[in-house]
Amino acid sequence: MPRISPRLTTLNEDGNDGWGVFYRARRMVAEGQPVIELTIGEHDIGTDAAILDAMHHAARAGHTGYAMVPGIAGLRQAVAERVQARTGVATRPENVLITPGGQAALFACHMGVCAPGDTALYVDPYYATYPGTIRSTGARAVALRTTAENSFVPEAAALDALARETGPVSLLVNSPNNPTGVVYPRAALDALCQVVADHDMWLISDEVYDTQVWDGTHISPRALPGIADRTLVIGSMSKSHAMTGSRVGWVVGPEPMIAALIDLATCTTYGVPGYIQDAALFALQQGPDMEQAVAAPFARRRALAREILAGQNTVGLVPSGGAMYLFLDIRATGLSGEAFANDLLDTCGIAVMPGESFGASSAGHVRVAMTVDDAVFATALRNLVAFAETRAHGG
Amino acid sequence: MPRISPRLTTLNEDGNDGWGVFYRARRMVAEGQPVIELTIGEHDIGTDAAILDAMHHAARAGHTGYAMVPGIAGLRQAVAERVQARTGVATRPENVLITPGGQAALFACHMGVCAPGDTALYVDPYYATYPGTIRSTGARAVALRTTAENSFVPEAAALDALARETGPVSLLVNSPNNPTGVVYPRAALDALCQVVADHDMWLISDEVYDTQVWDGTHISPRALPGIADRTLVIGSMSKSHAMTGSRVGWVVGPEPMIAALIDLATCTTYGVPGYIQDAALFALQQGPDMEQAVAAPFARRRALAREILAGQNTVGLVPSGGAMYLFLDIRATGLSGEAFANDLLDTCGIAVMPGESFGASSAGHVRVAMTVDDAVFATALRNLVAFAETRAHGG
Repeated sequence: MPRISPRLTTLNEDGNDGWGVFYRARRMVAEGQPVIELTIGEHDIGTDAAILDAMHHAARAGHTGYAMVPGIAGLRQAVAERVQARTGVATRPENVLITPGGQAALFACHMGVCAPGDTALYVDPYYATYPGTIRSTGARAVALRTTAENSFVPEAAALDALARETGPVSLLVNSPNNPTGVVYPRAALDALCQVVADHDMWLISDEVYDTQVWDGTHISPRALPGIADRTLVIGSMSKSHAMTGSRVGWVVGPEPMIAALIDLATCTTYGVPGYIQDAALFALQQGPDMEQAVAAPFARRRALAREILAGQNTVGLVPSGGAMYLFLDIRATGLSGEAFANDLLDTCGIAVMPGESFGASSAGHVRVAMTVDDAVFATALRNLVAFAETRAHGG
Repeated sequence: MPRISPRLTTLNEDGNDGWGVFYRARRMVAEGQPVIELTIGEHDIGTDAAILDAMHHAARAGHTGYAMVPGIAGLRQAVAERVQARTGVATRPENVLITPGGQAALFACHMGVCAPGDTALYVDPYYATYPGTIRSTGARAVALRTTAENSFVPEAAALDALARETGPVSLLVNSPNNPTGVVYPRAALDALCQVVADHDMWLISDEVYDTQVWDGTHISPRALPGIADRTLVIGSMSKSHAMTGSRVGWVVGPEPMIAALIDLATCTTYGVPGYIQDAALFALQQGPDMEQAVAAPFARRRALAREILAGQNTVGLVPSGGAMYLFLDIRATGLSGEAFANDLLDTCGIAVMPGESFGASSAGHVRVAMTVDDAVFATALRNLVAFAETRAHGG
């Protein structure tokens, strides 16, 4: 066999510490052991039947041929209107590329800004694919570290120092954040955007959790003064409409970049199934009620979690404002996130993600996906707290 | 706006000469003018209702969440069995990656073999996206020229000379061929494979037309002795099952490469919709009848074309053995393919693709997609021949 491109063999060089817990839990489930999985960011409901029926109707009506590569006109228009309504920035269909999911959008954005050998920044803690996505483009992925003390919100001074050191072409941010659930405050975004502009960087803003905000206000960086022409916004139907498997998302950005990304899409994906785009358009047209119905279980479970976590000091809740996760500080137990998660799985049959699997900044934390039935979730969280208290007291 | 990556702004540097005819025809149709479009490789039927119903059934049954990135087990198994049956080479699910369409498979293969700065070869004439796909990976795309005299089949001596000159990592071949319809003979493939091995190259074999063979036998290079471990086979449901819009295809290759491409897919697409994979599996399980029904109109129209073209010497038919196209030699008119196509559109309201839009090797030819109703097709082809005769005689 000839050589495999080195770019692929170094994709996972950060090692994804801690994913062993996830795979071990999956194996235990497959073997029939009772495990409560609070690992993956996937709803405990499927896609709404009305959306699926709209898809089937479109397919049976004949929308089964090649769709236009940039996306169908109606969906590009709907996304443009949605983004314009949320940001106040004029947005046209020509600012929108429909992609087969948010991950494809992340990849396209980095292909659009990175030449091989460039440096691209991402915020640590991070969603698992971020550094590999950057590396797959031939660029160097460099983490901007954050601290638990600042709720894992990236700081402008740290960005500026890192940018001076590495000369990056872009910064990737994600608010509401996975894994932490933190919604970046306006002041922090303003300061970050100033540094991004000072260094003539692109800002790539992954906003796939923008319908899941429990406290505060989601601010899209595209809305901030003078930054839209260097910002690429990533959106998706996955989290907002429980359409994870349908793989439909988008990039919104300056027209010349979108035009270049359409040329790229012609070579990488050749568009998104037309009937899925019709289904996505139908879903967006249902308005906020459908989105709120999809988000409601996580809001409800988060309120439950706050009750359960009140009145104890062993497990700290990172002050999350959104997304479908809790990020828990378990440093009082003296355990690493990975040791805690492995021990919790063995002792209580509860699977959570070690903070270390999202980067070095979040060591000593675990991520809890609020993706099981309320009663099961509440019991699991109570058991997690009791387990932590036992470990904190030397048990 | 900061810089767009140079890799995207040079994607189309070959210019795609002749696509102006296609876009002009589309505009004329949009304006209500009567144009017969014989341009694009898309069936005049949609996807079979039974396949769409299987998809809907899977979706309504709950297969709407994230599918495993490599593909669902059943479809990987079915593709492995299909390829093994056609090649005689042992093929397991671990040799298969399901991709969102053949184009995504083409891109993945080149990402897998090319490091930035490498050279990758493709055969001219070529499907429009080939050079851009190679360039998007950061590699240099170099055309292996062919000749009308050799029916546009690439020659081993020419490959050897080009490989010595450019040191390529791969060769991309496509048989049955788009645009020419030529099915590469066994001897030519044997000789090409020897040169590929001599230069320790990968062979990337795009076989998406493998169910559309009218003369001769389709030979997958994977079936040839000693070449499977350096061959990546690209397949798709688009042409075989009229599922163009569903974007589902695959790569078959050595396990270590497939494992690397799964890592890449995690960063580029994050899998293919589960319900589409279920539909593809259903379609494959229907066996050859469904495939033959999809292919039959093209076989029928090709027979029609041979009748119409017999008994005249102005328009030559490249000896095609497959695919949904005719490739016509119109050099006797003294016109370029582009001039012929533009003139034909204006004079007869018939849109065909200039040979030049597929590369310099096929100048003086036009591609005719057999994708309209038999009667309309026959009339259009008769008119094309009459038009060519008029031009050849100075009219």
